[in-house]
Amino acid sequence: FFHSIHATVGLDRFGYLRTTHNTSINTCTACRGLQLTSVTIKVIMHFSKRSLGALALAVSVGKVSAFQTHTRSESGPRHIAAFISKDKIQQSIVRKSNISGVSTFQMSISAENAEVKTPLEEISPSYKELVSKLQTITQLRRCSAVLDYDRMVLMPSSDDAAASRGAQQSALASIIHEKATDSSISGLIEKVHNDLMSADINSSQFEDERRVLELTKISFEKNERIPAELEAKRAALGSSAYTAWVKARSASDFSMFAPTLKECFDTAKAIANYHRGGDTSVPLYTQMLDEFEMGMKAERIDDIFGEIQQALVPLISKVLASESPPSMDALHGTFDIEKQKDVNKEIITKMGFDIDSGRIDESVHPFTMSFSPSDVRITSRFSTDEWYQGLAATIHEGGHAMYEQNIGGSCLDIDSYLSMGAHESQSLFWERHIGMTKEFCKWTSAKLGSALSGEGSDFDYSADDIYGAINAVSPSEIRVEADELTYPLHVILRYNIEKDVVEGRMEVDDIPQRWNEAMKSMLDVEITDDAKGCLQDVHWSGLAIGYFPTYLIGSATAAQLAYYCEKDVPNFHDDIANGEFENIKNWLTEKVHKHGRRYESLDAMLEDQLGEPLNPSYLINYLTSKYTELYKI
Amino acid sequence: FFHSIHATVGLDRFGYLRTTHNTSINTCTACRGLQLTSVTIKVIMHFSKRSLGALALAVSVGKVSAFQTHTRSESGPRHIAAFISKDKIQQSIVRKSNISGVSTFQMSISAENAEVKTPLEEISPSYKELVSKLQTITQLRRCSAVLDYDRMVLMPSSDDAAASRGAQQSALASIIHEKATDSSISGLIEKVHNDLMSADINSSQFEDERRVLELTKISFEKNERIPAELEAKRAALGSSAYTAWVKARSASDFSMFAPTLKECFDTAKAIANYHRGGDTSVPLYTQMLDEFEMGMKAERIDDIFGEIQQALVPLISKVLASESPPSMDALHGTFDIEKQKDVNKEIITKMGFDIDSGRIDESVHPFTMSFSPSDVRITSRFSTDEWYQGLAATIHEGGHAMYEQNIGGSCLDIDSYLSMGAHESQSLFWERHIGMTKEFCKWTSAKLGSALSGEGSDFDYSADDIYGAINAVSPSEIRVEADELTYPLHVILRYNIEKDVVEGRMEVDDIPQRWNEAMKSMLDVEITDDAKGCLQDVHWSGLAIGYFPTYLIGSATAAQLAYYCEKDVPNFHDDIANGEFENIKNWLTEKVHKHGRRYESLDAMLEDQLGEPLNPSYLINYLTSKYTELYKI
Repeated sequence: FFHSIHATVGLDRFGYLRTTHNTSINTCTACRGLQLTSVTIKVIMHFSKRSLGALALAVSVGKVSAFQTHTRSESGPRHIAAFISKDKIQQSIVRKSNISGVSTFQMSISAENAEVKTPLEEISPSYKELVSKLQTITQLRRCSAVLDYDRMVLMPSSDDAAASRGAQQSALASIIHEKATDSSISGLIEKVHNDLMSADINSSQFEDERRVLELTKISFEKNERIPAELEAKRAALGSSAYTAWVKARSASDFSMFAPTLKECFDTAKAIANYHRGGDTSVPLYTQMLDEFEMGMKAERIDDIFGEIQQALVPLISKVLASESPPSMDALHGTFDIEKQKDVNKEIITKMGFDIDSGRIDESVHPFTMSFSPSDVRITSRFSTDEWYQGLAATIHEGGHAMYEQNIGGSCLDIDSYLSMGAHESQSLFWERHIGMTKEFCKWTSAKLGSALSGEGSDFDYSADDIYGAINAVSPSEIRVEADELTYPLHVILRYNIEKDVVEGRMEVDDIPQRWNEAMKSMLDVEITDDAKGCLQDVHWSGLAIGYFPTYLIGSATAAQLAYYCEKDVPNFHDDIANGEFENIKNWLTEKVHKHGRRYESLDAMLEDQLGEPLNPSYLINYLTSKYTELYKI
Repeated sequence: FFHSIHATVGLDRFGYLRTTHNTSINTCTACRGLQLTSVTIKVIMHFSKRSLGALALAVSVGKVSAFQTHTRSESGPRHIAAFISKDKIQQSIVRKSNISGVSTFQMSISAENAEVKTPLEEISPSYKELVSKLQTITQLRRCSAVLDYDRMVLMPSSDDAAASRGAQQSALASIIHEKATDSSISGLIEKVHNDLMSADINSSQFEDERRVLELTKISFEKNERIPAELEAKRAALGSSAYTAWVKARSASDFSMFAPTLKECFDTAKAIANYHRGGDTSVPLYTQMLDEFEMGMKAERIDDIFGEIQQALVPLISKVLASESPPSMDALHGTFDIEKQKDVNKEIITKMGFDIDSGRIDESVHPFTMSFSPSDVRITSRFSTDEWYQGLAATIHEGGHAMYEQNIGGSCLDIDSYLSMGAHESQSLFWERHIGMTKEFCKWTSAKLGSALSGEGSDFDYSADDIYGAINAVSPSEIRVEADELTYPLHVILRYNIEKDVVEGRMEVDDIPQRWNEAMKSMLDVEITDDAKGCLQDVHWSGLAIGYFPTYLIGSATAAQLAYYCEKDVPNFHDDIANGEFENIKNWLTEKVHKHGRRYESLDAMLEDQLGEPLNPSYLINYLTSKYTELYKI
């Protein structure tokens, strides 16, 4: 019985192994043919140039520990070979790094008494064919992402270059669309189901494979239901509405955008209506939400957001009335950009962003882009007179990136992020619950002191000064500039409006009035300018209706994860103060990252991993206790 | 009669307009529907932020000058619209730059008495369909190039990242292969020919379109003739032979590579045999050559190379025996990398590389990559103890890039480089016939002086010192390190060997002996090491047999172009000494760049543009007179 495998989770993900010296995995997800009930991988490493090097590996399976360890250094090509037998696994990987000062190594695992099962690809050739088609789609999407990244970070800024890139992207997009709507997919899914039935397979087997089928079926059927004219309308509107929004915003005149925005709402509703198929019991807004926050229902958001609003409005009033607000002086001065870049890089790599599996660059709007778990790139932006926006962006994007770097490597949808809220929970976990803590300020204050001091200007603020300055509350008209305390209300505001428009309780034309009134009543902010009011965000022009609430779902999830992480990780606070983030990052990987899209919803994941679904009281408690102390109220 | 066009040559190529204030074009090649017998475009520009800005345009057609000029600034999307009537052309282009501080402009052209003809796309819907298919292939190839570029310049160096990128590239490559061998293409070509016949069109009409058909037919038929197994063999060998070559080279043992190399030769021969179809009158080596140097024949290379060898061997002997060799001291010292980068960028942009339509980066091996004429990127590499290799690489790649930046924008094969020799002629024209001249050293010596001086180390060499140092002859075992005088012999040596192996006059096993003997007799260089001998170059392992001679074809072409350019451009020498390269670059654009692949061969282009086909005496004369003077022989 000879069988070639991908390598186990820990092995294929070298970055993971490097930082995790004892890894327990229950199921080898990458190698579908192998059901290891309990594997302990112990890694002994010799770090050489650029952190690559010889590696010795020992594996114990079940109660029996029986293994081989082996290291060697050799030049040669990348080569993975695996030999498996009923009670013995041997795997060897010869790697060659393609950097100068080449160091290569071989890992061998042998384990006894492993339970081996036949992979579904062997039982069902249709599954093999399906997986191959789906992986091709993933690869082509990744190609497109590389072109996007290049456009935003490197491409010359001329119109001609942009037009040429547009033509390239559009050729690729047509191919991807063609492959993603390939009519043979639904037939293959059916055949695999038949194969599963006739093979008389225990229903608990092939869980991942069943999830692959399910996810494929859902997205394929959704796409299939959209008529071609509606698809064309969506595409055309996506570009013309953006233009209309840019114009209206630059003129600060909502009425210029209103007719197009109506079309956007109508088109998004039409799409959602097709997406839900015949099932009109699903509210339209819930269906829209599903695009971004799989499995989340509008009525649940109503409850969660209601609770948050009820708690925050009085808290913010008290904070703003405080007579002891922290000073924001530490934010401002004159700072060298190169030194900021260096300290940002030092901090984010220490936090767990694997720079050997990614890059840090600059762009106008910070973003994260993943081409595979081994190449996840983040961008930030820096200014000479304020240093925290740069660091906050780096940590925020770094949080997104750590999710992508620690997700599985199957190139299938099960190994992609669960939802937008789940993704945002990762960026906000690191940005807020690590990066905005007193302990973090303790760890970074000396680093920041030397990076932010220049010729003749000393940055001599204490950790407490920095903590106060970066957490200072100051209500803003603009969401993206809002502090963490007032931010939720910006989201709730737009959520309420978009839901009311979708459900016919208000007209598009009335948005500015509603917006301005709500900003006044919730945040005591006067809006005199549509550009800084209801026109500030791009989302609606891209038909992303139902997207907004994921920002606050992410905030609430981050707070809940932080609560449990603090309980689970022994020296949570000391770790942060000492700049030791390995246990925290590994906890997130265990609880969130590695599951990809295996759960049906964020709620399902939280319930299974933490014991309760999304619960906004963690966010409320966190904000209440933090700001009560900081503002002495 | 309403008709939408691409824009005329000058208009679509904004970078071109910017530097050319009066442009005469005989035929509007971009707009196929429009035969303008003489158009003068006068451009009045206002340069704003980042060289983009408002632009006023006036056009006169024929003797009649009648036009509209118009400028305005407005935000809005890129939009091209054109209105044409029998005697009037109006065209407006609204552009929006995608940089911050947006400045947009509109150009209007109106011209009277223009001769207008119906575009082939309207006469033959099949032509339209064919062009669309071919453009899609071009776009997808450009996508692949972006991924290549990213891999070589930016991608993390881990094996996992490389493997992921490999999977992305391979998914894209399959699609491209599928599109390029689309069986409907040959049918479309036939239909277009029928359409052309039945429309009773003057044979001088639609020259470009006929060339598009011809080029497509040639490449499609070639691809079609290769059996699938041979294609698979080629792909597999391409990767395994590379590995075998790397191993053999690192062991410096040709015999380890010999069996694989035999396979490479056999496979390349088999492919060439299919490529030539039934026509066995075409010698196999000529057929191989055709892949890289379209239309060139082996017997012509024999003549050309023979002449060069006969002249150079005695010249080199005399040079090496000279008692007054120039000093190479000026090359060495301790040089700051950032300052080298800055001066390289200053020099190459002044020479005509349009930095707004490209980038300059660093990579292990310098290269040029074009994603479209508006985005052509070059890389160089720098060292701290020798400065000239970096500058030579920048100028060399800059020369390649100027070819790509000034080629037409149809996204079809007629608007791609003519041949490898033609491409190399452009890099070598700039590297040698500009960059290695006394005048160039005069222009750059002050710049280099300040860029290469460091703390406590002054770079105080005269223009003559620099000229001597960069032109010093020192025979090397390694081709890529060879000076321009001995370089041709490296090429001739490998050419003779590969041709003899292909034509059965020698065995693969005998290559090292032949190599070492020839190096001794031609260059008096002792080879004691296969790695520095016949194993030094990668080409054969990639089945690129017939590629090598294009290096020397490029050298000879560059010398010939330089001879005629000096005659045609009024102040050729002064221009170089003053750092004024516009007329020289425009001359090359007129003679070479803009023709793309419209000629059947390099010889045909040279004959038509210069009045004689490739003639090696220009290279011989150039080298003889230059080195006779420099070495006082």
